[in-house]
Amino acid sequence: MFSVTVRDHVMIAHSLRGDVFGPAQGLHGATYAVETTFRRPDLTADGIVVDIGRAAQLLHEVLAGLNYRNLDEHPVFAEVNTTTEVLAQYIADRIADRIHGGALGASAAADWAPGTSSLAVTLHESPVASASYERYV
Amino acid sequence: MFSVTVRDHVMIAHSLRGDVFGPAQGLHGATYAVETTFRRPDLTADGIVVDIGRAAQLLHEVLAGLNYRNLDEHPVFAEVNTTTEVLAQYIADRIADRIHGGALGASAAADWAPGTSSLAVTLHESPVASASYERYV
Amino acid sequence: MFSVTVRDHVMIAHSLRGDVFGPAQGLHGATYAVETTFRRPDLTADGIVVDIGRAAQLLHEVLAGLNYRNLDEHPVFAEVNTTTEVLAQYIADRIADRIHGGALGASAAADWAPGTSSLAVTLHESPVASASYERYV
Amino acid sequence: MFSVTVRDHVMIAHSLRGDVFGPAQGLHGATYAVETTFRRPDLTADGIVVDIGRAAQLLHEVLAGLNYRNLDEHPVFAEVNTTTEVLAQYIADRIADRIHGGALGASAAADWAPGTSSLAVTLHESPVASASYERYV
Amino acid sequence: MFSVTVRDHVMIAHSLRGDVFGPAQGLHGATYAVETTFRRPDLTADGIVVDIGRAAQLLHEVLAGLNYRNLDEHPVFAEVNTTTEVLAQYIADRIADRIHGGALGASAAADWAPGTSSLAVTLHESPVASASYERYV
Amino acid sequence: MFSVTVRDHVMIAHSLRGDVFGPAQGLHGATYAVETTFRRPDLTADGIVVDIGRAAQLLHEVLAGLNYRNLDEHPVFAEVNTTTEVLAQYIADRIADRIHGGALGASAAADWAPGTSSLAVTLHESPVASASYERYV
Repeated sequence: MFSVTVRDHVMIAHSLRGDVFGPAQGLHGATYAVETTFRRPDLTADGIVVDIGRAAQLLHEVLAGLNYRNLDEHPVFAEVNTTTEVLAQYIADRIADRIHGGALGASAAADWAPGTSSLAVTLHESPVASASYERYV
Repeated sequence: MFSVTVRDHVMIAHSLRGDVFGPAQGLHGATYAVETTFRRPDLTADGIVVDIGRAAQLLHEVLAGLNYRNLDEHPVFAEVNTTTEVLAQYIADRIADRIHGGALGASAAADWAPGTSSLAVTLHESPVASASYERYV
Repeated sequence: MFSVTVRDHVMIAHSLRGDVFGPAQGLHGATYAVETTFRRPDLTADGIVVDIGRAAQLLHEVLAGLNYRNLDEHPVFAEVNTTTEVLAQYIADRIADRIHGGALGASAAADWAPGTSSLAVTLHESPVASASYERYV
Repeated sequence: MFSVTVRDHVMIAHSLRGDVFGPAQGLHGATYAVETTFRRPDLTADGIVVDIGRAAQLLHEVLAGLNYRNLDEHPVFAEVNTTTEVLAQYIADRIADRIHGGALGASAAADWAPGTSSLAVTLHESPVASASYERYV
Repeated sequence: MFSVTVRDHVMIAHSLRGDVFGPAQGLHGATYAVETTFRRPDLTADGIVVDIGRAAQLLHEVLAGLNYRNLDEHPVFAEVNTTTEVLAQYIADRIADRIHGGALGASAAADWAPGTSSLAVTLHESPVASASYERYV
Repeated sequence: MFSVTVRDHVMIAHSLRGDVFGPAQGLHGATYAVETTFRRPDLTADGIVVDIGRAAQLLHEVLAGLNYRNLDEHPVFAEVNTTTEVLAQYIADRIADRIHGGALGASAAADWAPGTSSLAVTLHESPVASASYERYV
């Protein structure tokens, strides 16, 4: 099994609803250092999992929809808590959508092995805490 | 699959028995930077894997039983080598015990999917070496 | 010259006023990984610059006044932009105040060499950007 | 499941063939920070996955065959692109060869559980990109 | 004293002339993780040392002249060894040139205090070695 | 001003005498990740501050005198607390001794500018605490 990981970051404001969140119920914010890992069982003819440049660009575009925003006012998250876990899933799902739309190249899209190739997104919210979501592409 | 990781550290003295350990047979010590990852297939109603604050507290309490100790004199390790691997397993097992005892909340305990939810503990013993143990919760 | 550095972090929301800040004029947030370095020309009789435990506690208390807050509504910053540089200075000044108030111990306070002992605070706002402020104690 | 990870690095020159590589088609180079993870379901009688010293030595020897080289002139890679993914596989395969040859000790070799014990090699090519290959031992 | 640090990276090939360089006399390469620190005694009216976005852009542009290149064929380095130290100085000097040319804004340029404001460039060539150069702006 | 930094690590056991050390009065241990920075105003004819290979070897040899030891029984430290600060000074002083003895080459020793060239040693004792000592060579 091969994988490629690219890294970027995003800075947002938000608050969380529920007693479990304690002081994080107040409006605060976070820098998330974001890693995205692309896994597949074999390489393309060029010897790669994905074009790292395109993968980095894809991640950057998805994060651009969140960056410098107050997520409490972001329409996509009107009904949900924007926990680190939920954001990891949201980012992974948007990346998968774009892969299916050809963002990593048509041939690349065709190369993904259904039920085998996967995508993992990890958000580091502080030096001592992070959350991840992993799914098939 | 979702996961949350929390980090802490512990400083201990110990020695290791067996020729394979070379100079580490002498009494020496280590700072272990410790990561604990909690994995489950879905999120609670609050949109989380675990309460990160409680998870960090749980890890801290388990490490408190080892911190600033000479493990050669710790009764739990009388019969075993306190290798990094053995300590990773010990820490993971104590965390699992406490989860089953309700340390992450009664509802959280009920939410764990048997045979699916897992727990991984990694100890970084130096910038160039680490060891991990992973088990079901 | 000796120094000791302790690390912690803080998560806040804020916005910045001025065209130079581009998209950061919107309400967003950050996790700041915060380092504080204490420098002095010689050691106490115990062989230390400061009690690391007390220094970490002091930093934690100063950050607690900011953590999980929207700095746009924090009375201290009503008139100023809460840039990373300004926050570094604010934190360093609060730490110096508390040192003078005895937070590191009366004898420690007496030990500081005026015009020589210094204090530096660095805030890492993302994996690619940080800011620092250094002053005499 | 237990694992041990050791880290080292290697500095090489190379170029990549194919439009997908853009400016990386020119002769350039990289420092790869290399992690190798050894995974097995249980520990040896000494309480270890592998002798960390021997594992580090094994990784260092495999990297020595690449270090300070222009991979475009390395006979092993005459027919292939030396992408990060390809190099991760090459390093993992050489480590597996040496394990089977007894590099981690004859008893260690015997201890590996076929179809269960695995080996993963990750190369960090920059602060924002890495690639991995994982295989059974 | 205030400072701001921005980070980027560059991947190059080169060889070094002189017995002191041992195996690094062969054509090889490196990824340099590059930090640039801007230091000044006080802040602008906006509360900043420099516009972090512009500083990052400035560093990126200077590195673009080196990235994916074989420095042995780069005309600027025809007469010198491209050691990490020499590259740190080269990058710092190009950044200073551009600051004097207004790259951080005309007002910013005017704000620099001659003989006080400084610039430091650090290149991390591997996890275990780095080099820096510091100069007045 | 130029500098070169090399990194290594050391694992020791020790205890500390004095109420200020709280639980660290018990026998425990630490992994110190050790950085040594060599600073000089100009470069040698080869374009370097020091031969990085020799500098790394020098640091490694000095640390070898401490590695896998119980510092409570180390004759050098019979009368002093082996705090992180004290160990940073001890390591820096041993490195300076060896530079004066020619460990970085006779010409290198001659090249050091008295009262200008300096040496800094930083010990990271945990992810949240470190100590440094800086002196002239």
